[in-house]
Amino acid sequence: MTRDRSRRRAEGRSEAPRDASTAPFRLLQNPWPPLTVISPAAEDRLHEASVQILENTGIEFLDDEALDLFAQAGAAVQRETRRVRIDRGLLLETIAKAPSSFTLHARNPERNVIIGGDYIVFSPVGGPAYSTNLERGRRPGTLADYEDLVRLTHIFNILHHGSDTHVEPTDLPVETRHLDYLYRLITLTDKTIMGPIRGRVLARDAVEITAILFGGHGVIREHPGLISIVNANSPLRYDNVMAEGLITYARAGQAVVVTPFILAGAMGPITLAGAVAQQNAEALAGIALAQLVNPGAPVVYGGFTTDTYMRSGSPSFGTPEAAWAILVGGQLARRYHLPYRTSGGLNSSNVPDAQAAYESMMSLWPSILAHGNFIYHAAGWIEGGLTTSYEKFINDVEVLSMMAALLDGFEINDDTLALAYIDQVGPGGHHFDTAHTLARFSTAFYQPLISTRQSYEAWVESGSLDAAQRAHLKWKALLKTYQQPPLDPAIDEALRDYVTRRKRELEPP
Amino acid sequence: MTRDRSRRRAEGRSEAPRDASTAPFRLLQNPWPPLTVISPAAEDRLHEASVQILENTGIEFLDDEALDLFAQAGAAVQRETRRVRIDRGLLLETIAKAPSSFTLHARNPERNVIIGGDYIVFSPVGGPAYSTNLERGRRPGTLADYEDLVRLTHIFNILHHGSDTHVEPTDLPVETRHLDYLYRLITLTDKTIMGPIRGRVLARDAVEITAILFGGHGVIREHPGLISIVNANSPLRYDNVMAEGLITYARAGQAVVVTPFILAGAMGPITLAGAVAQQNAEALAGIALAQLVNPGAPVVYGGFTTDTYMRSGSPSFGTPEAAWAILVGGQLARRYHLPYRTSGGLNSSNVPDAQAAYESMMSLWPSILAHGNFIYHAAGWIEGGLTTSYEKFINDVEVLSMMAALLDGFEINDDTLALAYIDQVGPGGHHFDTAHTLARFSTAFYQPLISTRQSYEAWVESGSLDAAQRAHLKWKALLKTYQQPPLDPAIDEALRDYVTRRKRELEPP
Repeated sequence: MTRDRSRRRAEGRSEAPRDASTAPFRLLQNPWPPLTVISPAAEDRLHEASVQILENTGIEFLDDEALDLFAQAGAAVQRETRRVRIDRGLLLETIAKAPSSFTLHARNPERNVIIGGDYIVFSPVGGPAYSTNLERGRRPGTLADYEDLVRLTHIFNILHHGSDTHVEPTDLPVETRHLDYLYRLITLTDKTIMGPIRGRVLARDAVEITAILFGGHGVIREHPGLISIVNANSPLRYDNVMAEGLITYARAGQAVVVTPFILAGAMGPITLAGAVAQQNAEALAGIALAQLVNPGAPVVYGGFTTDTYMRSGSPSFGTPEAAWAILVGGQLARRYHLPYRTSGGLNSSNVPDAQAAYESMMSLWPSILAHGNFIYHAAGWIEGGLTTSYEKFINDVEVLSMMAALLDGFEINDDTLALAYIDQVGPGGHHFDTAHTLARFSTAFYQPLISTRQSYEAWVESGSLDAAQRAHLKWKALLKTYQQPPLDPAIDEALRDYVTRRKRELEPP
Repeated sequence: MTRDRSRRRAEGRSEAPRDASTAPFRLLQNPWPPLTVISPAAEDRLHEASVQILENTGIEFLDDEALDLFAQAGAAVQRETRRVRIDRGLLLETIAKAPSSFTLHARNPERNVIIGGDYIVFSPVGGPAYSTNLERGRRPGTLADYEDLVRLTHIFNILHHGSDTHVEPTDLPVETRHLDYLYRLITLTDKTIMGPIRGRVLARDAVEITAILFGGHGVIREHPGLISIVNANSPLRYDNVMAEGLITYARAGQAVVVTPFILAGAMGPITLAGAVAQQNAEALAGIALAQLVNPGAPVVYGGFTTDTYMRSGSPSFGTPEAAWAILVGGQLARRYHLPYRTSGGLNSSNVPDAQAAYESMMSLWPSILAHGNFIYHAAGWIEGGLTTSYEKFINDVEVLSMMAALLDGFEINDDTLALAYIDQVGPGGHHFDTAHTLARFSTAFYQPLISTRQSYEAWVESGSLDAAQRAHLKWKALLKTYQQPPLDPAIDEALRDYVTRRKRELEPP
């Protein structure tokens, strides 16, 4: 290296290459054509099978209001069995009222996201009952864990969104914990939020809190500020809890991600075609319900179909079957002009090892290729979703950031083709020292967060840490840098008042 | 589980679900449309830039015969600088003589492969100087390591092909080791083979040995039985060693994979557009040379462009930049109707950890989407290609097998849609016990090789092994089951005679 180059390089370093911990917030758009994996005829056949399921077998709604809504709309409702049969005309006419994309609002408007079209929203894991890290191992989730995971979500701008349950805070009373974690989610990050939705009580609290945050029910009805996941109780059933949540959110104009959770061979046919046809029937029925409640309410078509490990009956994640279901689900969501929810980091590993990584990639890549719009569980998931791993969270942030860099592509123009420099360097030379290189070297390439570029010898000298161990050091260091985003004190007070009042009302005597 | 189901399940188990270690040999075809990531106009511009490089800057061939061939064909050859300038007419006319696909023959005809079209050939790593496993750690490669890695390649039918240097046997004399490892490769597997190509001596030995194996030069000229990689000495140079190897193989009708190895910012422009344009120019020049030697000789368009870690000048692997180069390279290879070589398992990790896995997936997925036909380094690569990891080899076999299962897709027909069973099970039931499930449960889904499906508790009880540790147990167990494929004793003797004679000739006095 010439002295001149060393000097310029030193100057270049002061430009501070950005890794995932310092990257700015931005919306991601998928520039690629969606991948079509089944023929139009096969897609028609899947659609037709789903329609036949809803017309002939029908679907159960355990909630009375749901039955009323379907009956009023003209569906064949059998009250005693709670079975609803929906003909294709009503189905297609109803789901056509759903918007093909919508803006989900954040309390910081600069962090609003668009869900639909070519946009990609990455959301961390939601739902695990345990959390683990290399320091203290696996334990039932606590509020402290939840707070740390929301802080990490706030730090990494590749994550557009905060989950309601990065981990379930099992150290809090079950009746009121939703108030505590939702308050923490709102105050610890200014990104868009997911709310509790299981049953009327939780769903209403989530809507009330969102209304306080944004300035009233009228405001959030026009500008949704809350999203959540409704799972069908597959096969072919929505229980009270799910239907109530769906209805409550939809009525308030908040976004619902309707996601059947189908294990092929258990909650659906063992053959993937049948499992996906059933997924489609269940998703469309849930979406239709939301549109009957409130035409035009924001909804997302969700898929979560995977295979069952038949020896134990437990789900397998990050499998070829699940990848295919993600890809085919994308074709169906596009057919109905609906935003599409997939999962980006699923795996069956119990530790953040190679399996966790390759299975997650068998979940993320299809999600991108299928034009997933809301990619859930994209950071932190291990152990089939029972546990959130801090180190896996960091590894996933690296992977999502790499994917975003790839989707950005690279410009092809006179400047980047650099023919004059190729000519100047000529055969057998090198480009280290060209003006073209020197002007760009500190920012030209993706800057890793924890991936090593060290030689073997340097790596051994620095402690032979694997990716999980480096991830461990990374999250611990970054949590120390966390800064809480400011919140209007009046809103904060109103939120606290609501939480205090409701905790009094909900706490068991 | 009902008793009846247990019984049937027990019967089902005797069908022995197949994992990667028992899967039969088969050709893979890519059913998906290739992913187009740049516009036709951008692709034209890259092509035009490459043509301009070859017309204006030109490319160096240090070999006299290469200069003669280009001069005879009408290229502008500057003898003193060894610079060849090729106009677009000559270039396109010459590369058009290359076949768009060809059959590479194995000594067992059932293991022939097709290279080109929609076919996918997975090849393990080639080139590392070290090998490592969890038992003994990292050491310079030995013939014993090489033999073990060929045996594993033989066992796993997802690997279609054997490399000449799964690891370099550094315990053998450099002058003659190519004879030893090529003999081992031919005798330990009956799959297609890669041969040494660096310089006339090695390349001729490889061709002679292949001729002995298949029954003469005339036979292999019509039915190529040997393939190898020629790297350009980027930027814009083919040295003697590479040009001699390319000419020797092409003249004998053996397949050459012409692969520039470009580190953007070092051996090419730091901007990816320029690096890929240079890759394209170099690849086309090498392919043109092969066609001048022997019109119609089997060739493969290779890409190996990645970014440089500018702090150390070393290559980075499995990066977004490399993924983009793979995808764009595919568009260019298709433009010229040439088979395409990519790399499927590249990474910069020093151990078979999460980084090794996710970077490999950033290399494999684009290779599949770009319609890579010959996917090299698909199993075993770690440490930027300096080391072959036995455990990574196993993990990669798992991943390649998952990818093959995904590419197979799933049938959509009356049987697989299973509407009668969906109706029979109805809302809230389960499919565990249906005749549809019972007929299929033992073979329905991808069967993992080392990926765990155990619950956390069962996994802890069985030793808390991570993916690398399970892979370790797997390769050790499988090597014990290895069976050497038979070889005609007369051919074996002829091969031994050749090796013995050439070792005598080549050994330093």
